[in-house]
Amino acid sequence: MIAQLLSAHSDTLQQAVSANQSRLYYSHWQESPSKKFYGETAATDGEQAFKQSLNTAFNRFVQAGTTAQIGEEESPYGFTLGVTYPFVPTEVLISQAHSAGQAWKRLSAQERAVVLIESLEQASKHFFEIAYATMHTTGQGFAMAFQAAGPHAFDRALEAIAVGYYAQTATVAETTWTKTIGGGEVHVKKSFRVVPKGIGLVIGCSTFPTWNTMPGLLASLVTGNPVIVKPHPKSVLPIAIVISAMQRTFSAYGLDPHLVQIAMDSSAEPRTLELAEHPAIALIDFTGGAFGNTIEAIAHKHGIAVFTEKAGVNAVILESVTNLDAVLDNLAFTVSLYSGQMCTTSQNFFVSRDGVLENGTRIPYDEVARRFAEKIRGLALNPKMGAGVCGAIQSTVTAERLQRAQSLGLPVVCASEPIAQPGFENARSYSPLVLQANTDQQDVYEQEWFGPISFMIPTENFEQSVALLVRSLQRKGALTTLVYTIDSAQRSHAEDAILFEGKTAIAFNYVGNIFVNQSAAFSDFHGAGANPAGNASFADLGFVVNRFNVIGTREVLA
Amino acid sequence: MIAQLLSAHSDTLQQAVSANQSRLYYSHWQESPSKKFYGETAATDGEQAFKQSLNTAFNRFVQAGTTAQIGEEESPYGFTLGVTYPFVPTEVLISQAHSAGQAWKRLSAQERAVVLIESLEQASKHFFEIAYATMHTTGQGFAMAFQAAGPHAFDRALEAIAVGYYAQTATVAETTWTKTIGGGEVHVKKSFRVVPKGIGLVIGCSTFPTWNTMPGLLASLVTGNPVIVKPHPKSVLPIAIVISAMQRTFSAYGLDPHLVQIAMDSSAEPRTLELAEHPAIALIDFTGGAFGNTIEAIAHKHGIAVFTEKAGVNAVILESVTNLDAVLDNLAFTVSLYSGQMCTTSQNFFVSRDGVLENGTRIPYDEVARRFAEKIRGLALNPKMGAGVCGAIQSTVTAERLQRAQSLGLPVVCASEPIAQPGFENARSYSPLVLQANTDQQDVYEQEWFGPISFMIPTENFEQSVALLVRSLQRKGALTTLVYTIDSAQRSHAEDAILFEGKTAIAFNYVGNIFVNQSAAFSDFHGAGANPAGNASFADLGFVVNRFNVIGTREVLA
Repeated sequence: MIAQLLSAHSDTLQQAVSANQSRLYYSHWQESPSKKFYGETAATDGEQAFKQSLNTAFNRFVQAGTTAQIGEEESPYGFTLGVTYPFVPTEVLISQAHSAGQAWKRLSAQERAVVLIESLEQASKHFFEIAYATMHTTGQGFAMAFQAAGPHAFDRALEAIAVGYYAQTATVAETTWTKTIGGGEVHVKKSFRVVPKGIGLVIGCSTFPTWNTMPGLLASLVTGNPVIVKPHPKSVLPIAIVISAMQRTFSAYGLDPHLVQIAMDSSAEPRTLELAEHPAIALIDFTGGAFGNTIEAIAHKHGIAVFTEKAGVNAVILESVTNLDAVLDNLAFTVSLYSGQMCTTSQNFFVSRDGVLENGTRIPYDEVARRFAEKIRGLALNPKMGAGVCGAIQSTVTAERLQRAQSLGLPVVCASEPIAQPGFENARSYSPLVLQANTDQQDVYEQEWFGPISFMIPTENFEQSVALLVRSLQRKGALTTLVYTIDSAQRSHAEDAILFEGKTAIAFNYVGNIFVNQSAAFSDFHGAGANPAGNASFADLGFVVNRFNVIGTREVLA
Repeated sequence: MIAQLLSAHSDTLQQAVSANQSRLYYSHWQESPSKKFYGETAATDGEQAFKQSLNTAFNRFVQAGTTAQIGEEESPYGFTLGVTYPFVPTEVLISQAHSAGQAWKRLSAQERAVVLIESLEQASKHFFEIAYATMHTTGQGFAMAFQAAGPHAFDRALEAIAVGYYAQTATVAETTWTKTIGGGEVHVKKSFRVVPKGIGLVIGCSTFPTWNTMPGLLASLVTGNPVIVKPHPKSVLPIAIVISAMQRTFSAYGLDPHLVQIAMDSSAEPRTLELAEHPAIALIDFTGGAFGNTIEAIAHKHGIAVFTEKAGVNAVILESVTNLDAVLDNLAFTVSLYSGQMCTTSQNFFVSRDGVLENGTRIPYDEVARRFAEKIRGLALNPKMGAGVCGAIQSTVTAERLQRAQSLGLPVVCASEPIAQPGFENARSYSPLVLQANTDQQDVYEQEWFGPISFMIPTENFEQSVALLVRSLQRKGALTTLVYTIDSAQRSHAEDAILFEGKTAIAFNYVGNIFVNQSAAFSDFHGAGANPAGNASFADLGFVVNRFNVIGTREVLA
């Protein structure tokens, strides 16, 4: 039966491999939730499926060993989901994963890849349900929830499959080696087998329950490792839909569904450490905040591979532009989108005290700040757009952080206000706050202020902006930096310093419909893997090669 | 000038990349020390260069900061080398490495690769001198010293360059990404830069001062990292010749010679920990024994990549054969070659108590043991062959280990005797010792007995042999295993268990001129990287990708 999948999905696999290599635009799933692509009833079917799940026990898993049903999800739009999921004890999860891995690791890399593509195709039939589930666990607006949790997450998953397949097939699987020794020929038949590391643990986050979980999940699976997914207890449903669809696909193809299992916990009784410390865990993927340092320390202690995305502080430098209005439109969207709850959202804006050069004309700092605030409020508080772009605040902790920022006593560049979310009167939704910080207030702005909180930092000049940014990158790391300069010498200086000293990705002069907090599968590496914001990158070779070894068999032929 | 090297060496680079992929036989340097390849006077010139170095200060380095000259090398053939080398304080080495890396990391992967190939070509002009230097530091016989320290080591170095180049070029360096958004097209110019991890430290061993040092050295260099080499204080001269030739090549091409530096220490005042603990060290390569666990712990504490080859226990299972004589000839050579001082030499021989099946006829265990001993003594004590094949014992510690093994009180299968080394009456040279151990004496035979020491272990049957071997692999690891069976079911069982449970490479039915302790560059992965004998493999993708990151620059095009 897997043979059918080889013919069905080999083209997809090859296209994904090629896209990873060329970094050209590629997307396997349509990012638009249009009826044209998904059919007339897909949206309403998905919404209905979501609503039918509410206040029920989620019963689609093919996973043994359940001892209880637990769940604690609350929509940031103001209601309780009431969904419960199976709790399976850790030793049972480990034992089931180990058993499931036995046949899986003996498949070829290509067989694993096409089975996984099929599992994604099956799960993708639930895109609209996943979108509603994501909206009401993360607080994302519907359009973003659809894109980020559906097609974009699945493209990242396919990317991980493709990179993993590429790495496993970088050398031939079999050959006959011939050498002339002392006049005669010696022939040695050699084969090279992929041997996976063991059981993978993927620890999810609350804001991107599929997008940040699926790359590690698929990277471990394609390289032969069974996986246990420990979602954030407040954001389970989106990944539960994915995992259960994958389990059903495995079963349908005669494979053990426990290749991927869900490991539930609760805020009151977390089990991340219990799982991470388990000696059978051979790989850990983690997305979240500073707790990632603890996870890295555990992995280092055990000598196992760990892939993290942690806290970071993203920044923008504004120096010279051709169209300040277009720039500020772009930046206003960047800080508003999902209320700054993306790991890629810009937090700090370094702007020369002298202001910004627009085609040789200097726009004073105060005017830049004022116009930036106008743009943000014009978008976030726009009744037609603000609610959908900003969405809601996932966590009460983030809402409290916003309060704390407001009480710092810093000059307010752009005040935050509640945003009305039509139909959800109890939604936790606020427009972005921008404060002004002095260059020496690094104890404030070099912290990650996750959520709709940013800082404008007036600097002496461009060189100081670059120096302060590089200092921050070296100490705290980042996922994105964005520099506006139309001066080629300054551009080169910033690029060199940020890439080689700050070890962070850099974007220049973003305007229009493309934003620094978006990263495209198959083209943009997400995370440098080289600074304190995380050691992993979606999906470079390092993201896959540490999940397996290649071990050889040799035989002298007569 | 580097442009000239691009045209001179691009073919070599491509051939090496292809060979790594196909795993077919490939060698860039002639492994035979024949005049046909190396010229009429190469051998005598090399010997003379070696002799002229004796009792002098080695003065070929292009390396600043020397504060003293030190050296303590002793030939295992019985004389003092008296060569001294520059001692440079650690902070000076670090500072010089850091400076040297600045221009180096900004070259392209291809530029670095061809400069490094040129540096190998220049160093290869010293093959005969390296051979004598290796013979008289490691104790290897001349023929082996030539092959292992010259062409074979250099092929492994070229392999590391090629894998590093392949990994760095797995994605394009530049592209323009085009996406249709809302009816219009967005164009983003993207570039992807290799950003190296930092300064590499390569810690050498006493028995293979070039072969085990050069892969890590070249892997770090090709990926943009300057390297500090800390050789074993008893085996400096071979790698000093290589390093100085590389430094001179770098200088000749306008690059900083401190891209590779030698860090001397002494047995009395080792500095491995001082170097490994230095916060500027970002990568560590280590070859040696159990001390590698300490090195791994340091690297894990610092969260840096480490590549190790440590102690391991290699084993053979003898079950069924078509020609026992040919098998025992092969195994006698394996345990004799360089007196068992290869990390790949078989130590434990599991043989069923019932004996070995030869074409259906059972040869009793005692007869197998007796004939094995005869073969070993016939080779090692053969006046024409023994001295060259066995060479001398590198370290007094190994000679003492041989004494200790003899006093274990175990039944002697094959007694060890001194070997005469013509021309070197004080040589430390002994034929292999084989003892018999019971299956339950794991405290003895599951230890690594580095040197001319092995154990025959009579087992209940093949299944027990496999189970004992897998147990040993899981606890102690290994670089090689060798199984003799002509039964296909037993073969499958052993292969599956050793690959997937023992996570170690396996060879079957070796006879003739090919030996389990040899591993061929471009074809055999050396080390599985998956068991306690070490975490690295020469040279899989994991050996190179953890030495750099790929970080992107994006710019929206108007």
